[in-house]
Amino acid sequence: MRFGIVVYEGVEPIDVGATFGVLSMARRVEPRIEMFLVAPHAGAVRLAGGLEVVAGHGFADCPAADAFIVTGGPGWTREAANPEMLAFLRRLAGTSPLVASVCTGAMILAAAGLLDGRRATTKREVTGAEVPPIAILRDRHPAVRVLTARVVDEGAVVTGGGVSLAIDLTLHLIGRLCGQSVAAETARIIEYTAAWRANGAAFEAPAPAT
Amino acid sequence: MRFGIVVYEGVEPIDVGATFGVLSMARRVEPRIEMFLVAPHAGAVRLAGGLEVVAGHGFADCPAADAFIVTGGPGWTREAANPEMLAFLRRLAGTSPLVASVCTGAMILAAAGLLDGRRATTKREVTGAEVPPIAILRDRHPAVRVLTARVVDEGAVVTGGGVSLAIDLTLHLIGRLCGQSVAAETARIIEYTAAWRANGAAFEAPAPAT
Repeated sequence: MRFGIVVYEGVEPIDVGATFGVLSMARRVEPRIEMFLVAPHAGAVRLAGGLEVVAGHGFADCPAADAFIVTGGPGWTREAANPEMLAFLRRLAGTSPLVASVCTGAMILAAAGLLDGRRATTKREVTGAEVPPIAILRDRHPAVRVLTARVVDEGAVVTGGGVSLAIDLTLHLIGRLCGQSVAAETARIIEYTAAWRANGAAFEAPAPAT
Repeated sequence: MRFGIVVYEGVEPIDVGATFGVLSMARRVEPRIEMFLVAPHAGAVRLAGGLEVVAGHGFADCPAADAFIVTGGPGWTREAANPEMLAFLRRLAGTSPLVASVCTGAMILAAAGLLDGRRATTKREVTGAEVPPIAILRDRHPAVRVLTARVVDEGAVVTGGGVSLAIDLTLHLIGRLCGQSVAAETARIIEYTAAWRANGAAFEAPAPAT
């Protein structure tokens, strides 16, 4: 039950809190859960808003894991064109049972070709002049069946919606790997039960992104 | 519109993601928002689950801010007995317009005496043998009027519920400092609107903690 969280310069800090942080709380329910951060290079990584976190591993010394979660944030535009990142993700897809994304992490999975022929989702809501990532995903990657959804589970590849919905994706993976009762108990102790239920109702029928 | 986030060894990473991380997203709506981490000493701080973050400031060189948010996590038990932390919080209460807590950060505010004579809330839901912090708050601090609530706003001091409810507390502070439309727009772009509404309904009538 080991989770690798893939980070890079310009990830939104909430994407780390809602993946690594939810897993940290889930360990109170299932102590066999482990997690680590992996970045292109081990050491300090500067996230959006200036938060610095320390990645325990670089791509070159990345341990095996039962699931990897690729985080999102404004740095995705650079990483979607970073050959080192794309090669790493393709290697994960070939060697790991499960590769997932939260928020705009899906844009990097798409650039690596991991979403081709699959259903997927990503961040929808933006402000100002920003173009919705879900529209970019649909326009740039015609081989991806893009859905408006909270979580899209395609077995070996799982994608989640934007920002705070990373909590829902992480709970979904906990449910798959550790059992639904561990996921529900984790939602309860992070005081997310009402929110989880509301998000479930809001996305009851995943629909093609328009 | 500057926010200081108070961290220490053993904070839950989701508490940083849900405060600093929500503010980082809010900057897309209101670019004048700024935030920084402050810890007893500047530099690397080891959070729960092993995540390392870098605090830009120590207590000795802490800048002024419009609001400080004290985070929670298992380290609270040590910090509630740390004279350096308690002196720092009392100094903030005397010099800052607003001191807030998320999750078990309230336990440290209580130990510093900042909640005496005020209404307050903290984390409720626990698993296994853990005692609910809200029960400890009520039993150890009879001068605090402890409520089951999402956010308790007492003007100069604001406390929030457990773990993921740190998102709701941060949105509440954004509403107070930057206006309700900035808070609502931030909730929308973090794809939290349904969850926010559901949490509001779940805690419609704050009640004395039992």
